[in-house]
Amino acid sequence: MNLHAIFHLSDSNYAYAYDKETLHIRLRTAKNDADKVTIRAGDPYHWAAGGGGGNLNAEGAFGWVCEDLPMQKEASTELFDFWMAEVKPPFRRLRYGFLIEGGNKQIFYGEGGIFDLNTDLRADHISNQLANYFCFPFLNAADVFKAPEWAKSTVWYQIFPERFANGDASLNPEGVLEWGSCDPTAFSFFGGDIQGMIDRLDYLANLGISGIYTCPIFKSPSTHKYDTEDYFEIDPQFGDKKTFKKFVELAHEKGIKVMLDLVVNHCGYNFGPWQDVLLNGEHSKYKDWFHIRSFPIVKLEDEAWPNYDAFAFGKRMPKMKTENPEVRDYFLEVVRYWTSEFDIDGWRLDVANEVDHAFWREFRKEVRTIKDDVYILGEVWHDSNPWLRGDQFDAVMNYPLTSAINDFIAKNKTTASQFKEAISRVQTMYSRNVSEVNFNLLNSHDTKRLLNACNGNKQKVILSYAFLMTQAGSSCIYYGDEIGMDGEDDPLCRKCMIWEEDMQDLEMLETFKKIISLRKIHSAMRSPKLEWIDVNDGENCVLFKKYDADEELYIIINNSDSAKTINLSAIPQKIYADLLSNNKVDSTEQLHIEAHSIVLLT
Amino acid sequence: MNLHAIFHLSDSNYAYAYDKETLHIRLRTAKNDADKVTIRAGDPYHWAAGGGGGNLNAEGAFGWVCEDLPMQKEASTELFDFWMAEVKPPFRRLRYGFLIEGGNKQIFYGEGGIFDLNTDLRADHISNQLANYFCFPFLNAADVFKAPEWAKSTVWYQIFPERFANGDASLNPEGVLEWGSCDPTAFSFFGGDIQGMIDRLDYLANLGISGIYTCPIFKSPSTHKYDTEDYFEIDPQFGDKKTFKKFVELAHEKGIKVMLDLVVNHCGYNFGPWQDVLLNGEHSKYKDWFHIRSFPIVKLEDEAWPNYDAFAFGKRMPKMKTENPEVRDYFLEVVRYWTSEFDIDGWRLDVANEVDHAFWREFRKEVRTIKDDVYILGEVWHDSNPWLRGDQFDAVMNYPLTSAINDFIAKNKTTASQFKEAISRVQTMYSRNVSEVNFNLLNSHDTKRLLNACNGNKQKVILSYAFLMTQAGSSCIYYGDEIGMDGEDDPLCRKCMIWEEDMQDLEMLETFKKIISLRKIHSAMRSPKLEWIDVNDGENCVLFKKYDADEELYIIINNSDSAKTINLSAIPQKIYADLLSNNKVDSTEQLHIEAHSIVLLT
Repeated sequence: MNLHAIFHLSDSNYAYAYDKETLHIRLRTAKNDADKVTIRAGDPYHWAAGGGGGNLNAEGAFGWVCEDLPMQKEASTELFDFWMAEVKPPFRRLRYGFLIEGGNKQIFYGEGGIFDLNTDLRADHISNQLANYFCFPFLNAADVFKAPEWAKSTVWYQIFPERFANGDASLNPEGVLEWGSCDPTAFSFFGGDIQGMIDRLDYLANLGISGIYTCPIFKSPSTHKYDTEDYFEIDPQFGDKKTFKKFVELAHEKGIKVMLDLVVNHCGYNFGPWQDVLLNGEHSKYKDWFHIRSFPIVKLEDEAWPNYDAFAFGKRMPKMKTENPEVRDYFLEVVRYWTSEFDIDGWRLDVANEVDHAFWREFRKEVRTIKDDVYILGEVWHDSNPWLRGDQFDAVMNYPLTSAINDFIAKNKTTASQFKEAISRVQTMYSRNVSEVNFNLLNSHDTKRLLNACNGNKQKVILSYAFLMTQAGSSCIYYGDEIGMDGEDDPLCRKCMIWEEDMQDLEMLETFKKIISLRKIHSAMRSPKLEWIDVNDGENCVLFKKYDADEELYIIINNSDSAKTINLSAIPQKIYADLLSNNKVDSTEQLHIEAHSIVLLT
Repeated sequence: MNLHAIFHLSDSNYAYAYDKETLHIRLRTAKNDADKVTIRAGDPYHWAAGGGGGNLNAEGAFGWVCEDLPMQKEASTELFDFWMAEVKPPFRRLRYGFLIEGGNKQIFYGEGGIFDLNTDLRADHISNQLANYFCFPFLNAADVFKAPEWAKSTVWYQIFPERFANGDASLNPEGVLEWGSCDPTAFSFFGGDIQGMIDRLDYLANLGISGIYTCPIFKSPSTHKYDTEDYFEIDPQFGDKKTFKKFVELAHEKGIKVMLDLVVNHCGYNFGPWQDVLLNGEHSKYKDWFHIRSFPIVKLEDEAWPNYDAFAFGKRMPKMKTENPEVRDYFLEVVRYWTSEFDIDGWRLDVANEVDHAFWREFRKEVRTIKDDVYILGEVWHDSNPWLRGDQFDAVMNYPLTSAINDFIAKNKTTASQFKEAISRVQTMYSRNVSEVNFNLLNSHDTKRLLNACNGNKQKVILSYAFLMTQAGSSCIYYGDEIGMDGEDDPLCRKCMIWEEDMQDLEMLETFKKIISLRKIHSAMRSPKLEWIDVNDGENCVLFKKYDADEELYIIINNSDSAKTINLSAIPQKIYADLLSNNKVDSTEQLHIEAHSIVLLT
C-alpha cells in the first residue's frame, strides 16, 4: 500500500463539524489502493472497567470504548481516493483513527503515524494508545460553519450596473453613448442605473432568479466603480439612496435577495482620506490609513511604481491599512449603514484574500449582529479554506469549479475522466457545508464571456449552466448569458445588455428558465452528494447520480460534437422522465442524446 | 518519484509569515526521493512587458516576473523529507510553485496539481498559468503569529502549590499532614501556600529559572484546585490577594515571570452559578451557563452519568457554555482582573482544546489589550495548529516533544534514528515562530515523574533536561526534578517538595543550574535551527548541530548504558570546549563520552 499517500488533517476540510451534532471525517489514500477503510472512533473519556485510561493498563488491557465504522469512498482524483464518514458523537467529543485494508495489508493511521499492523512491531502498541489517535476535542456550536440556509437554493444574477439597463436618462453622465451603440472601452459610459434595475425586476423574476449580485454602486469615477470615492454614497450616475432603497424593497417583494459589492482592500484615488494624504503628506491625519513607504507620494504621471501599497501596482487604488482600528471602524460603519438602513442580504468582498483575517472576523461579527442571515462572499480565486472555517466567509467565488466545467465543456481541454477528477477535487477541497452555499459561476466581469470561451456554441453554454445547476452551492448567471450575449475579455465582457427581443435568443432564455425552475424543485440537484456511474472518455459522455434523502436523479451529459446512444443498464431499470424535455425514458432501452446536451432523469 | 507523497498546504505550518516581512514555505516529499527542490516565486501582479497577465498571451509568452530559489532540506521523518525556503516578497504578496527533481524526473507542483514536466503533455501549459500556483495573497501584519519575545529564553518552573512549600502554618487546612510525612492521596493536604513560594524565591532565582508556572490558586476544595469555586478569590489555604501581589512583585524583582493556571472549560461543583442551578433547576438564571440536557440534574450520589456536559464524565466538573455571552464576559472579567490588578505574565489554560475557538480569540484580544506581552499557553496534547495560527495561543503543552524525548532517553523504546525522526516531526508540525516559544516539558502534575519513567536513573533525567534545553521553545522544569524527586502517576507525582538539603541531590541541582545558565548564554541552544550530523543506531549515539546567525554548537548524546568513543571527523576540525565540563575537546581525536550523557561543543 502507498503509505505516503495516506493523509488526514485535524480541524480542516478533512475533519469538521457539519452541524451541531455531526462530524464529517475524511481520509485520503492513493487511488485504487485501499479496498476498505474503517474509522475507529469513540469518546476519549469512555473506558470500560479495567481499561487503561489512554494506555494499556498493567494487565495489558486497552479498554477504550470505541466503534469501528465503515467509511464510504466519496470521490477520486487523478492520484487519490477520498473516504468519508459521518459521526454523531453522543458527548460531542471524538478521538479516532483509521484502519486501512488493501493488498493483504492492514494499516493503522493516527496522529502518531502510519503503521502496518501485520509487520510493524510497533503497530499494536501504537494503536493501543489513545495519544496516537486524532482528536476532535469538542463540537462547540460557536465554531460550527453556519451560512444562511437560503443561499443553498439561490440562483444569483450578476449585474454590471453601468451596462444592465438605463432607466433614468436624467442621470446620464456627460458624454454618454447610445445604449449598445458600440463595444465598450474601459472608459465608455452608457448610463446604466438603479432605475434600470428596478424596471427590469419583472424580467428577472420571470427568469426565475432569486438573488441579484450587483458590482459596486458606491460613488466612483470609473465605469466599474471598484475604485470607491465615497463608501457612504451611491454613485450619482446610478441614482440616489431613495431609489436604491426602493430597488431593495421591490426585489424583496419578488423574493429576490440583493448582494452589494464592497472593496475594503483598496480605495479609489478620490477617496477623501487619500486626497488628504496627497494634500498634507506626512502631516495628514490619515497617513496611517494606508501603507505608505515614503514621502512625498509618487505622482500619478510619474513612471515610478507607487511608493505605497496598492491593488497590484495601480497608483489609483491605494491599499487600505485595515489593521488600523480607525480604518476597521470606518469600514464596519460602512457595512452597518448599508446593511441596517437598506436591508441588503449579502456582501461580495472584492480582493478579499489580500485583507487581513482579523478584519474579516470583525466584519462577520458586525454584519451578523445586524442581520443574522447575511451572505458573506469573498473574492478568492485559489484554495480558500483559510477563510471558510466558520469565522470569516460563507463562500468564495468558486473559480476552481469554473475551470473544471469550462475546461471540459467550453474548451474541450479535458477528457471525461479528467472532468470527473476536477469536479471531485473541488468537491473534496471544502467541507460539505461550504460546498452547499459556495458561489458557483461560469464567467464574470473579470473573465471573457462563456459564449466566447465556447467559441460561440450556445449548446455548450446551456450545457455548462445546466451542469452548474446540478451542483451543490449558489449558482450565478452573468447578465445576458441567458439571451446569448457574447464578449471577449474585459472590457468586452461588459457590453450593454440587449433588451430588443428580436436581438435576444428567446429559445435560450426559455431553456434557462426551465433549468432554473428545475433547480428550485429538485433538492437532489442542490445536494452535495454525487456518485459517478459511467465516465466514458471515448464517447465523451458521463453519467452520474445526484441524490439526497428525498430524491435520486440520474444525469447524462453528452459533451461530444455528435449525438450518442447511451446504454443505461448501470442505473435502476425503470421508466424515467427527462426533466428538461419531459420525454419518457425507458432505461432498458438505449438513450438517444444530442451533441452537447444533458438529460436529467427522475 | 513518489507523486503521492508531495504535499504543501496554503496558510498552515507549510506556508506562514515568520515576521512582518518574511514568509516561510515548506514542502514535503517522500524520503530520499527528491535530489533538488526549487521554489518558483514572484509577485502575482509583476509582469514583464508583453506578459500574459496570468496566462500565456496570444504570442505564447508567459512573462511572469519570478525567481527560482533553492529550498533546503529541513528535516526527515520515517516517510518524508521536508524542504524549507525563506522568502521576503518586496510587495508582501507571493505566488509560488515547486520544481522537484529526482530520478531523472522534473515535477511541477502547484495548486493546480502535480505534473511531470518531461512526460505530461499538460505540464508546460499548467506551469505557465498563474492560477495553478499557490498563493500567499498578502503578508498582513495583523495576521502574523506574535508571541512575547521573552518566552523564547524563559526556563519555567512548574509548581503544584499545595506541595511546594508551607510558608504560613496559620493557613493550614483542617487535618493537615506533616510536610512530606507520607505519600499523598488525592485528598491529602500538606499546607503548601503562596508564602512558601515567596520564601523559596531565592532558591528559584539561584536555580536560574526565569518563570514560575503555578497550578491553580483560585478558591477550590480540592488539592489540585482544577475545580474552581470562585474565580475572583485566592484559595484561603494558599493565602490572600495581598500575599499573591507581593509574590508577583518579588518574583518580578528577581526577573521571574509568573503564569497562572485558569480553567475555563469547566467549573467546580461549588461554583456559585452551578449551585444556583442545583437549587433552582430550570428556573435558575444561570441555567444557560452550562450545557444541561435535562432536569432535574442527576445527583452526585446517583450511579447515572451526568445529564449535563462535564469534564470527562465527572459530575463535579460541569462544562461551562463559553458561547453564552454572559459566560464569555464573566471569564474575560476574570482575566482582566488578575492580569491588570496583579500584573501576571502568562495564562496557562486548562483543557483548552475543548473550549470554542471563538472564545479564545476574544480571550487573546482582551488579555493582550491589557498587557501586550502576556504569554498564552493552552493545554492541548495533540496536533495544535488550529490554536496556533496567531489568533489564539502562543504555545501549547508540547507533549509530542515530551514523548519523542522520553521514548528515547527515559524508556529506551526508540532507536537513535527514530528519535531523530520524532524530533523532526515535532519540528515540522509547527511554524518556526511557534517552535521558538512552545512550552516544552518532560513531565507534569498529569504524568508520572521523569525519574520514574527513567527507572530511577538520574543520569537519564539530566540527559533529558539537557537535551530539552538545547531545543527551541520555553523549557519547563517540574518542581523537584532538579533535586532528584521521584513519583509514579498522580497522586504520587505530586509529593511534597523536599527541602532538607541532605535529602536533596545537590550534585544534580548543580548540574541543573549549569544547564540553565548555558541556555541563557547560548542563543544557538534556543534557535529552531538543527542539523543532524551523525545518528548511530548501533552505538545509540547522536551528533547534531544547533546554530543561529551568531553561533554554532555541536552536541553529542550517548544514550547507551556504556561509555562510548566517538569519532568527530564529521564536524569542523578544531579545539572545542565542552560547555558542561569545561574540558577541551580536540575534534581530530576520539571523544570519550560517559553512558547517558551529553557533550556540548563550542
